[in-house]
Amino acid sequence: MSALTDLLAFQRETEALAQVMGRLGWDQETVMPKGAAEQRSDEMGALESVLHARRTDPRVGEWLDNAEATTEAEAAQLRLIRRGYERAMKVPADLATALARTTSLAQGIWARARAADDVAHFLPTLEEVVNLRRQEAAALAGSDGTLYDALLDDYEPGMSGDEIAALFDRMRPRLVALRERVLGQGTPPKGLTGAFPEDRQLALAHEVAGVFGYDFLHGRIDQAVHPFSSGSGKDVRITTRVDEGEPLGCLYSTIHEVGHATYEQNIDDAYGLTALGQGVSMGVHESQSRIYENQLGRSAPFTGWLFNRMRAHFDDIGLHDQAAFHAAVNRVNAGFIRTEADEVHYNLHIMLRFDLERALISGDLAVADLEAAWNDRFEADFGVKVDRPSHGMLQDVHWSVGLFGYFPTYSLGNVYAGCLNEAMRRDIPDLDAHLAEGDPSAATFWLRERLQRHGGLRPPRETIMEATGGEISEAPLLDYLDAKFAAIYGV
Amino acid sequence: MSALTDLLAFQRETEALAQVMGRLGWDQETVMPKGAAEQRSDEMGALESVLHARRTDPRVGEWLDNAEATTEAEAAQLRLIRRGYERAMKVPADLATALARTTSLAQGIWARARAADDVAHFLPTLEEVVNLRRQEAAALAGSDGTLYDALLDDYEPGMSGDEIAALFDRMRPRLVALRERVLGQGTPPKGLTGAFPEDRQLALAHEVAGVFGYDFLHGRIDQAVHPFSSGSGKDVRITTRVDEGEPLGCLYSTIHEVGHATYEQNIDDAYGLTALGQGVSMGVHESQSRIYENQLGRSAPFTGWLFNRMRAHFDDIGLHDQAAFHAAVNRVNAGFIRTEADEVHYNLHIMLRFDLERALISGDLAVADLEAAWNDRFEADFGVKVDRPSHGMLQDVHWSVGLFGYFPTYSLGNVYAGCLNEAMRRDIPDLDAHLAEGDPSAATFWLRERLQRHGGLRPPRETIMEATGGEISEAPLLDYLDAKFAAIYGV
Repeated sequence: MSALTDLLAFQRETEALAQVMGRLGWDQETVMPKGAAEQRSDEMGALESVLHARRTDPRVGEWLDNAEATTEAEAAQLRLIRRGYERAMKVPADLATALARTTSLAQGIWARARAADDVAHFLPTLEEVVNLRRQEAAALAGSDGTLYDALLDDYEPGMSGDEIAALFDRMRPRLVALRERVLGQGTPPKGLTGAFPEDRQLALAHEVAGVFGYDFLHGRIDQAVHPFSSGSGKDVRITTRVDEGEPLGCLYSTIHEVGHATYEQNIDDAYGLTALGQGVSMGVHESQSRIYENQLGRSAPFTGWLFNRMRAHFDDIGLHDQAAFHAAVNRVNAGFIRTEADEVHYNLHIMLRFDLERALISGDLAVADLEAAWNDRFEADFGVKVDRPSHGMLQDVHWSVGLFGYFPTYSLGNVYAGCLNEAMRRDIPDLDAHLAEGDPSAATFWLRERLQRHGGLRPPRETIMEATGGEISEAPLLDYLDAKFAAIYGV
Repeated sequence: MSALTDLLAFQRETEALAQVMGRLGWDQETVMPKGAAEQRSDEMGALESVLHARRTDPRVGEWLDNAEATTEAEAAQLRLIRRGYERAMKVPADLATALARTTSLAQGIWARARAADDVAHFLPTLEEVVNLRRQEAAALAGSDGTLYDALLDDYEPGMSGDEIAALFDRMRPRLVALRERVLGQGTPPKGLTGAFPEDRQLALAHEVAGVFGYDFLHGRIDQAVHPFSSGSGKDVRITTRVDEGEPLGCLYSTIHEVGHATYEQNIDDAYGLTALGQGVSMGVHESQSRIYENQLGRSAPFTGWLFNRMRAHFDDIGLHDQAAFHAAVNRVNAGFIRTEADEVHYNLHIMLRFDLERALISGDLAVADLEAAWNDRFEADFGVKVDRPSHGMLQDVHWSVGLFGYFPTYSLGNVYAGCLNEAMRRDIPDLDAHLAEGDPSAATFWLRERLQRHGGLRPPRETIMEATGGEISEAPLLDYLDAKFAAIYGV
């Protein structure tokens, strides 16, 4: 057999084992008996050891040295496998072990600190996580770049901190201006009222997931504390959560996760259990979840159809026309919590985190000074004082598990979604008419053909540019937001 | 570190990975999306390769050569690890691969053959499975023993085909005599009638599982096509199935699986993720499921309590006193299907399979002659002609997946359960009074302390003898059956 054949066969098993790890994660969050947590940690640790050994197996290096690609897909396979191998080889084993152990403990410490609003309880652990990730970044960066860029590269290959900073600098003034126009307008839209039983919310979630093309033959919806999508290829499951007082959370988190999940489901079968068989980056992944959720799911025509479905599922929802429902679904308010933020505020939350984490990793900001820096920045950007740490620097799990460089991919996803939406609407001029009938299939088909089916074939930037036929720019997103909220708020 | 420490650390990871394999099996049978089957097979295949490589890792042999045990538990660890290592090393890799692939395909072919009552469709595959298992048996047996004993040793270490044949020869006359007395009695007991909705059957199953000591903090109950118990240690899940026309299947399959599952849950925590951390053999496992199901769950005092719980859950069940319910739960009839057999007939089903599979493996019976042999034997033993292959040789999955040597462990389990029941009732003279109040905890405590907590510490035979304080004999089982059915049928 050739080196390429051997390498791809080996990689196939590695990808299959990575899927098994994903199954364990899904199980843990959905169905695992409570008392099984400690044993599960042993099970996942053993599987992680196996995966690490495979990712640093010297044969992979030899095969990579000798393999020759003759197609674009083979070249992409080699590129991605080499990337993973070189990354794994750069990180000393004891550092990888220390990171795994520390972040695993840190997540529990963070959860307790958040529950008790006790920053001091979390700081020593966070300090250790930052230190370890800085060491890892130094090992990854070598002499080639900044520490932060080395971490960012895990989530959005080919993107740099400077490029994101420049992008955010261009976005901020227009977002702040829009925010002020909307909040200055005075009367916020009315919210929903009524009875929203769990079983009917789940029935609607299943219906809408199907409408957006989620394939239940290769997936399922369960409940979990946090909504997520899990798995690739032929088994891609999503979760949602239900609050019986508020049905929009379940509904839109489902549409969001369906965006992630259909991306995975729609990747070319030929890439299954290969390095190309997953979404290409966190940013591109988020572009799919956000365009499903926002540009399609929160559009005026689709919410018009949804208003009728809501009334069919819940009878009275306290709103009496499509416009009022559209406004309720897109209500803007300056809350503390990122995950509850509207489209106008969301990226401002991310910019705050991006600047702070970049300063933590560069060494410009000490962990001890993080809370003050967060609170000052939040008041400056949002005009409100943070009233407690769980509404401030303790709100997100990310840093506790070492996810530095991850936050900006949420905003990149929004920017990509803006570009994709512009191109898609150019190609499908009558999309709104379909959406008004509850049919986003023209859009989801377009996304599948232009982007999703390619998986990891091209790097993230090229993936978006190939799909849109143009450069990546923040302008389409900002134009879309200006137009949408001007219409809803009359500003 | 010492060789023993290294070996036990390595084994701990192997055991953790084996648990992961169990989770995948559970997932496949309960929640997996239908379209994920092929990918799942790749995932399980990759994990199986990892496990096989660990089980044949040359370091295991070296550690075994150098490790020294200083405690009974350490000696047992070494004995079980050596057993697994030597077994894995004896089977050539290509034979193991061929067996895995063939049996995986054969199961589907068997299922289609059974659905179509088409023996010819199954025979070529069965022939291949028998041939491969005979090759494997030859590799395992070396010059030491018979082919069948080599296979039996996988499921019931220390037991031989000759010993089982002698045991069955002693059991058959008394079972046949009891069968004839009962069936000759004329009027079969009345069955249940009423409405048995799924949710109420599951509520009762959960209640009764709790009564038998099933620990829901470390387990859960789901529905599956076939009831099973899965996992060891801190995550032991069971499944059941619901037929809305007939509530006893769900109820007693749950009690049966709770017997298996509590055995796993009650093993000493110190043995978790070690070679001692599972039930010691199939026969001993079955002794726990059967004593829970039959000697406890189908006893007159317990069914008296259960009669009232049934009426509380289902209102009218068509029976109006405890004696009628006890008779219904223990109804004897000569059906074709092993899994539906009563306590009188069950072991006769096993004896038929034991003799046929032993002849297949020895070469005395050709696969082509199996159907005729089955049908002749069934008519001789049960007095009824097999009316279709799915009621005959196609009814069980076992042979299609290569499980030759497994069937007799069911009857060994019944024999062990008889011995355990006798000793337990000697030690707990007032057990019936507790059972009449729906409280089997004196019995389950006795079983936990005398047997379950020891896991794999002692070989199967010693495990039973230590628990009972006596020899293993079929007499207690047969005495129990004679007394029980004499009382119910007045014979």
